[in-house]
Amino acid sequence: MASFRSIKPEIRVLGIDDGRFVPRTKGFADVVGVVYRGGYWFEGIMHTTVTIDGLDSTEKIAAMIRDSPYCGELRVVLLDGVTFAGFNVVDLRALSRLVALPVISVARDEPDLVEIKKALHNLPDFETRWQAMTNSGKLFAVQTRSAENPVYVQTAGISRDFAEKLLKQTSVHSNIPEALRVAHLVASGLFR
Amino acid sequence: MASFRSIKPEIRVLGIDDGRFVPRTKGFADVVGVVYRGGYWFEGIMHTTVTIDGLDSTEKIAAMIRDSPYCGELRVVLLDGVTFAGFNVVDLRALSRLVALPVISVARDEPDLVEIKKALHNLPDFETRWQAMTNSGKLFAVQTRSAENPVYVQTAGISRDFAEKLLKQTSVHSNIPEALRVAHLVASGLFR
Repeated sequence: MASFRSIKPEIRVLGIDDGRFVPRTKGFADVVGVVYRGGYWFEGIMHTTVTIDGLDSTEKIAAMIRDSPYCGELRVVLLDGVTFAGFNVVDLRALSRLVALPVISVARDEPDLVEIKKALHNLPDFETRWQAMTNSGKLFAVQTRSAENPVYVQTAGISRDFAEKLLKQTSVHSNIPEALRVAHLVASGLFR
Repeated sequence: MASFRSIKPEIRVLGIDDGRFVPRTKGFADVVGVVYRGGYWFEGIMHTTVTIDGLDSTEKIAAMIRDSPYCGELRVVLLDGVTFAGFNVVDLRALSRLVALPVISVARDEPDLVEIKKALHNLPDFETRWQAMTNSGKLFAVQTRSAENPVYVQTAGISRDFAEKLLKQTSVHSNIPEALRVAHLVASGLFR
């Protein structure tokens, strides 16, 4: 479990989001990772693809991180939710172990777990997907900025206290960390 | 000629750079445009392709800008030099007219115009390319940050004084404007 006595302002964080894709088709969605120093400096970028509604997001994202030149500098991984490319569920606990880093998923809207479970039942390998969901830990709300909506968070390899501190410190321009905000802009702007 | 009495800290600037490509091959290079608010906030991204050693960079970049949702907000366009995808020369004056915005090219190293002219002679349409070079105006050095190397600048549609002011104000993390620094990281990181 990573613990940060105090969080350096230039802590290297990776924000990961997927590009647009046509739901329920065969194929791949693009996934972009953006490295920021804390909440301020864009430092680098990485890219992979994951199968639409597939089972490979944990492995593919782990490989993207490990193969990137930034891997050694990173201190935490932030994901835009735990489902990528439709219902390709990232197992936060497995991802954290594979890259030896804390992982935090951040959703702008409260995930409706009942609806998600229902949707997963319509796909093959329900048990695998649901296991990944439950491995991704308890959902909790974090008020990253006082005047804005909270975000909904799951974590692996980091205490709730430090996750909250880190999210607050890096959400300097909106209610989500800059690395995630920019990963979203790049992924949705370049990959449609 | 655009004149800015004072430059707003959140002025929207577009930085444009190309990705990697194999020199002297047939094909296209990717070109990425990154929108920043001043020197601090990543605001958006756009993309096009230009022909390796072709003649279409001015037109393609103009179309990318005009077709982007950010066009109306932009106040200035920054280019990483005037040659894209090899020797596909951007005509700064024509680009400025096409998008109705000031254009500034910024090179980290002093361009060797004698060498460039020699190289252009080895390509078809020398006159067109050289005309674009000369339309891109007089080269001058700007010391964007006191302790770092100067950058080498050409402009269209903006006075030298205001170009210098704008470059200094937006070069907050290195000797080049953030929008250009990040466009380079994205283009070279995603497109090889």
